Parts: sequence; C-alpha cells; structure tokens
Amino acid sequence: MTKNFYLYNTLSRTKELFVPLHAPNVGLYVCGPTVYGDPHLGHARSAVTFDILFRYLTHLGYKVRYVRNITDVGHLENDADEGKDKIAEKARLEQLEPMEVAQYYMNRYHDAMDKINTLRPSIEPLASGHIIEQTELISEILKNGYAYEINGSVYFDVAEYSKKHNYGKLSGRILEELQSNTRELDGQSDKKATYDFALWKKAAPEHIMRWASPWSDGFPGWHLECSVMSKKYLGNAFDIHGGGMDLIFPHHECEIAQNTAAGNAAAQYWIHNNMITLNGQKMSKSSGNFITLEQLFEGAHKLLEQAYSPMTIRFFILQAHYRSTLDFSNAAMQAAEKGLNRLLKTCDILNNLKPSDSSSLDVSFLEKDCFDALNDDLNTPVAVSVLFDGVRIINLVNEKKETLSKEDIDSLKKLYNTVIFDVLGLKKEEKGNTQLTDDLIKLVLELRQKAKENKDFSTSDKIRDELKNLGITVKDTKEGTAWEL
Amino acid sequence: MTKNFYLYNTLSRTKELFVPLHAPNVGLYVCGPTVYGDPHLGHARSAVTFDILFRYLTHLGYKVRYVRNITDVGHLENDADEGKDKIAEKARLEQLEPMEVAQYYMNRYHDAMDKINTLRPSIEPLASGHIIEQTELISEILKNGYAYEINGSVYFDVAEYSKKHNYGKLSGRILEELQSNTRELDGQSDKKATYDFALWKKAAPEHIMRWASPWSDGFPGWHLECSVMSKKYLGNAFDIHGGGMDLIFPHHECEIAQNTAAGNAAAQYWIHNNMITLNGQKMSKSSGNFITLEQLFEGAHKLLEQAYSPMTIRFFILQAHYRSTLDFSNAAMQAAEKGLNRLLKTCDILNNLKPSDSSSLDVSFLEKDCFDALNDDLNTPVAVSVLFDGVRIINLVNEKKETLSKEDIDSLKKLYNTVIFDVLGLKKEEKGNTQLTDDLIKLVLELRQKAKENKDFSTSDKIRDELKNLGITVKDTKEGTAWEL
Repeated sequence: MTKNFYLYNTLSRTKELFVPLHAPNVGLYVCGPTVYGDPHLGHARSAVTFDILFRYLTHLGYKVRYVRNITDVGHLENDADEGKDKIAEKARLEQLEPMEVAQYYMNRYHDAMDKINTLRPSIEPLASGHIIEQTELISEILKNGYAYEINGSVYFDVAEYSKKHNYGKLSGRILEELQSNTRELDGQSDKKATYDFALWKKAAPEHIMRWASPWSDGFPGWHLECSVMSKKYLGNAFDIHGGGMDLIFPHHECEIAQNTAAGNAAAQYWIHNNMITLNGQKMSKSSGNFITLEQLFEGAHKLLEQAYSPMTIRFFILQAHYRSTLDFSNAAMQAAEKGLNRLLKTCDILNNLKPSDSSSLDVSFLEKDCFDALNDDLNTPVAVSVLFDGVRIINLVNEKKETLSKEDIDSLKKLYNTVIFDVLGLKKEEKGNTQLTDDLIKLVLELRQKAKENKDFSTSDKIRDELKNLGITVKDTKEGTAWEL
Repeated sequence: MTKNFYLYNTLSRTKELFVPLHAPNVGLYVCGPTVYGDPHLGHARSAVTFDILFRYLTHLGYKVRYVRNITDVGHLENDADEGKDKIAEKARLEQLEPMEVAQYYMNRYHDAMDKINTLRPSIEPLASGHIIEQTELISEILKNGYAYEINGSVYFDVAEYSKKHNYGKLSGRILEELQSNTRELDGQSDKKATYDFALWKKAAPEHIMRWASPWSDGFPGWHLECSVMSKKYLGNAFDIHGGGMDLIFPHHECEIAQNTAAGNAAAQYWIHNNMITLNGQKMSKSSGNFITLEQLFEGAHKLLEQAYSPMTIRFFILQAHYRSTLDFSNAAMQAAEKGLNRLLKTCDILNNLKPSDSSSLDVSFLEKDCFDALNDDLNTPVAVSVLFDGVRIINLVNEKKETLSKEDIDSLKKLYNTVIFDVLGLKKEEKGNTQLTDDLIKLVLELRQKAKENKDFSTSDKIRDELKNLGITVKDTKEGTAWEL
C-alpha cells in the first residue's frame, strides 16, 4: 500500500516518497506543548500542520496512531541545561503545586486546540508519567558507555558518541564548531563539555518535582521523554516524527543520539514546521514576543485591530506552506477571513447548483491539481489556490455564464467537501441556533412580501431596514428574496 | 477559620463539624473514573456531588486543592483480584493500544463533565503516571511486615495487619465474617487468604501494560493509586476523601489499611455519595444496567421518553440528598426539567422586579434556611425547596399581590444568583444566538401588533400560528405582548 505522497524529510534534506513500515498502519509522533503558559499562534501552527498531516494520511486510507506528548516536567529553562525547570519555576511564583500549574495550562491548551478544530491525538502521554521508562533508557545508555554520572546527575557524552556516530546528522551541526562556539563552563555545571546534555539531574533540596532513581532523587532531562514515549507507543522503529523547526537542534538531534546510543532505531521521516513571525521575529513564549490564541479569539491585544475566529486563524496558517515562515499581520488575517468566507459561501452555492445537460468547460483538472499539491509535501497554499480557481468557475455557473453536468457537479461537491472539511479541517462557525433564526427570517420575509403585495410599502421598507439593523441584508432577485447575515 | 458546615463522616458514622487541618487551605481527593467505557448517570452523580462540595467550600472562603484521579491501569475485573485488567481487556478486544482506549474514554468523560458544568479539578493524576510512587509504597508496606511476595506478585497481609489495626474501621466489615463468607481459593491465586488483596501483580507474558519493579514486570493493584496520589498532591494527612458508596469496601478500606501499614495518615473526613438506581437496581457499567450521559443528552435509549439536557440531569441529581439513593425515571426527569425551568424563569423575574417602599412580608428566612440546609451535610434538596418557597413569593410580588423593598429584592437577587449558579452550579442553557432570536421575535410581534391595529386579523392570527409552529408561545397581557420559547 503505497500512495503517491511525498514528504520533505529533514534527515535527508529531500522530498521522499512516503512508504510506511507497516502499512496500512502509520505511527506519527509529534512534540506537543510544554504546559507552563497559554497557547499562542506558534502552538497553533504546529498543531494545525500535524493535524492536516494526520487528516491527510487518514484520507489516504492509513490507520494512524497519532501520539503527541505533554511536557509537564524536565524542560529546562535554557538549552545549556543550567536553568531551572520551567514548570517548577512558575509554580513557586504562584505558590501552587507544579502539577496544578501543568493541569491548568494543559486544559487551556486542549480547549484552544478544540476551537481550532484539530483532531485529538490517539494518545497524549505526559512526561511525568514515564519516569520509569526514562530511567531505563538512561541505564541502557550508561551501560553502552555513552553517558557518565557526576554527583547524582547523568550526562550524555557527545564526544564519545561522536567517535562512532554522527552527532549532527539531523541538524547539520558540526561538533568542532559547537565546541568552539560555546562559552567557557561557568563552574556551576558538572558537565565534561558544554555540548553534553543532561539525561538525569539531581534535584536541589527545594525542588518539588523529583523522583527516586539509581543516581539521585531528581528529574529527567528534557530530550529523554520523546525517545521513550515514541518507542513505547509506536514501537522501536516508526514512521514519522514531527515538531517545530526550533526543535531540530538540540531537541531532536539529542533524541536521535539517545536512541542510537541505546541501540534503538528512531523515526524514518522527520518533519518540521517553520515558525510564525511577528514583525519579522520568531513568535515564542520564551522571547516574550507572542500573541495568545485567546487574545486572537477576543481581539484583546494591542497589536490586533479586531478579533479573529478560530477558523480564520486555521485558514491563515494553511495558506502558507508549513516549511515557510509565516508573518503575522492584521492585513493578512483579514485577507484570510475574507478568503475563507468566500470559499465557504461557494460550498453552499455548489451544493445548490443546478445541473445542465452538459458541461461548457472541463473541471477535472481541479481534483488532479488539488491532490497533486497535497501529495507534494502537503502544499496546502497551492491546494487552496486550486480551490479558488474552482470558486470562479462555480460562480460563473451559478450566474448561468457557464454550465456543468450533474456528474461534474457531483464530483466537485465531493472534492470540495473532502478537501475543505475532512483534509484541511475547516468548518462553518455556527453563530447560534441557525435553524430557528432561519425560520424566523423566512417568516419576516413572508410578511414583507405580503406587505408589498398589499402595496403597504412603508411596512415592507420598515422590515428591510429593521433586518439591516440586525445585520441581515435582503436582496430581491428574479428567483425570489434572498438574504444573508 | 471555622464555619458552621457539617459533613457526614463515614468513618465516624456521624455528622461532624468540618474543621480543615490547614485553613484556609482544604485538600479534597475524589475517586474518579476508570476510563474503559462511556460515562453514565452514576459517574454524573459522583461528579456533581463533589463538584457541589468543591463549590460550597470555595463559597465558604476556603482555597481548595481538588484532586480527582483517572484510573487508566490496575483496576482488576472483579474485587477478588482474579480478573484481567479492565482496560487491557478492552484494548485487546478492539486491537488498540491500551492507552489509546484510556485516552479515548478520558476525553469522552471530560466532555460529558464539561457539559454538566462540573468545574475541572485542580489536578487529575493518572494511575499509570505514578508507578514509582506505588512501588515505593509497596516496599514500605513489605518492610513493615504487612505484605508478602509470592511468585513476583505482592499481596497485602490482612490477617497480620488485623493483629494491630482495625481492618474494617471504615466499612464496618468484620474479618471473621469476611473469611467465612468468601468461597474457597480456586487454585489460581497465590494469596494466603481470600481477603488479602494485590499490591503488585506479575504480568502474564501477553499483558501489555507492565512496568519493571523489584518483584516482577507487572502492574500495581487498584487500591494503591489513591493512597499514593492523595499523599503526593495533598500531603500525608489531608482533609476530605470522597467517592461513591460502592467504593467504601473494598477500595477505601484497603486504602486506609495501606496508608496505616506504611505508617502514613489518611483523610480526616470520608464522604460517600449513594447510587443511582434504574428500576430499583444499581446503575453501573459492570452490571450492564446503565444509561450513558450521551444517550440521555440525545434521548437515544429504549427507556427514554425524550432527551434530557445536561442541566436537567444536574438538577435531577441535586434534588436528592447525596447520601440517599436516587431512582431514575422519565417522570422524575420531566419533573426536574419543569422545576428547573420554573426556577430559572423566576431568576429572570427577580432581576426585573419592581421595588416598593416597604415589604409586605419577611423574606429573611429564605437565606437562613437555604444556608442552614447546605451547612447540614450539603442538603441540596432542602436548599432547593427553600428556593421554591421564594419562587412563590417572587411571583406574588410580580403579580402585585405582595410587595418587597429594594433592600429585600437586592438580598434575594444575591441569594438566588449565589446559590443557583455558584454553589449548585446550574446555568442557563443557551439555545443558540439568543440575542438575534429575541430581536427577530420582537420584530415579528411588532408586525403582528401593527396588523391588529389595522384590523388585519388574518395576518395577526397567521403570525401567532406560525410562531406556535416554531415553538414560540405568544401571550397578550395588559402590559403588552409576552412570549416564551
């Protein structure tokens, strides 16, 4: 079972034909959030990217087990491993139990992801729930001679590993440069070399998040959880590992090194989404340069000219290719909002389109071009532009300037509903009890029609004006009276 | 900081004044769901009971840390410990990874609990995430001589424990009776006595959920997780432990024995909600006699005459005292639906009530009686009946048969809003974009009024009939035209 689906593999730096190890099953592991702050646009981009991958693989007929972890422990403040545990830090700040902070932000993350219509992963394992497996992996790496213990902490020995393996195979970093580019040890670390990274950290006495281990009461290094949880739930060798580009180094490079040092395999395809920038700078919590999703939904941020709905945000994200940077601006968001409305409205028109005996133009290219784009490393912006080519045609047919046969209309309906709703994961955003609203508007328009028939124009005009005040535009056409909210 | 709040303590079999160990902080631990099936009415009753306790403690000014666990491993098929792990069993059935099943049903549980408006606990720890802590507790119990290891499994030694401690102090069970009442060992168990219970079970080779331990690759016994997670997140001694009455024995009895055997303390107050019965029988997954919450929301079960909204279900539950059995019937649910509508409508009337210079009756008893009821072991049915006494008065005032001063109206507003929404956790169920709907109905009624003024009775009658078809009843009163959905 091989499809014509190509994915850019960061490991080989080329687009590769996707061939799963155990078709029709596919294992997909994605690095999820560190739950110590509100989800922002950067989180949304990663989640939407891999949601579309998950949806597309499912569309292709694969049975996908999608694992996305929750980092609730072990993510150190900076990549040099000298910082405090991010979550414990926040907890002390708020005088809360660290897991209370993690639970709070995990709930917030889930709520926001539900809103932008990402499907829930098959499994969402917590780092704190897999300490045993992490200590087992450390023991394995120590046994194989690729790690060393100092004062209760265990570090990965990058120099030793590099004698036999390629540290840098994913990121392209070169060990000698890493060595010369990093500053002198400041004496606070026990590490032999700055590029070594923690597998286990001995906890300071005041550190709340701690577990017993053969080396000390402490906590695992950040990179460990993904090595362990991907293997546990997807198997030793599995298909796809995804995450943001900022995770290529050190996180994913270290993950590969850990797996290799323990004699394990890892993912076949490494897929990375690019960043969202804000005024040209990376949007991220740690840099302070970010807009949360809640602020976007509510328009509550000084940079925002208005609120943007979850589907507008989703459409904005998928209008760029996932490997391109995407710069946030109000103009781009407003264009996305307008484009999405046009696309969804066209779906309604398509569903009510009247067929002719024959088609005056060939529309078969739409399906082919659309799936060619998706098969080409999930090129969603090209797929969307193909859909817009169809929007033009559908509107011409609706205006009776072109014709389409029933067969062509049916295949377009199938294409648009499949791609827009199933694959791209867009949806109509309900603005209330639409059925009752529709029925009431219909009643009001009937009363207006009756008033017109009775030549009671003051009433019919009053109705039109009142409806306009409620945001409902009335249009009289040859077919009757139409309206839109 | 002591309030006048009494709770029935299963341990002492009396109502006791609630005095927290570390006021204003309160630690509350509640046994959550085993996530291997859809949530049903029984889950809702437990969740609503402790949600109201959580809300009321918060209302009293306490800062509550509310921990509710998720059992995703270790709950054995039957209390005799001979069965298979419930979750692993279901997983094999569906050819899924056990954690995929657990994740699926955990999500379903959370969605249903959100719908019935239970507040999310501060921490929701997973049993599978606390294996280290569980093995540590087993080691402690072994060291103290209250457990024994046989063939890689570890059992709690109830007879040994009973020499110094009271096994049965919570449930009132007597050891000798337990012994004589249980059947002969069937040879499949390694236990010394039938009433001994598993702390650690060696996993069969095909068993997927397994962890390394000093005794075997296996999994913890079900009772262990709550001993461990309550201590971890609430401290050695803490305030309240809650759960369904069916958990008193063996689960909570075993929990107390484990804590005591390890030299730990446990909860001060043990609170248990009674069961929901269906045709007089306990409603539970394991007996197959149950209606899921989704079936209730959708009316999709052969015993249901209609769908019942989440708030109807909530109101139905809190109209019985949590320690009474509650028998499900369509008649009772329909009465709850009607009662809730009447109560919420009265809130609207109250919020628009016109004050007089003085009150023609004394309403101060309402607040006193309402909180007296809540302080008396959370007697929600009495509190609700007091609110209904007020409903009668508020309607009399609205009909101008009695009068209330501004001060009395303000204090009633505060009472009703606090108790109904904050403490009992009820809410108005939005049926769509109510503002737009309201405005449209208002417009339609204006048009009807105009038709009547023009003596165009055919139009005005047509409007009334059309609205009736949409479920909107129109009433002409002296003050004008009123309507309700």
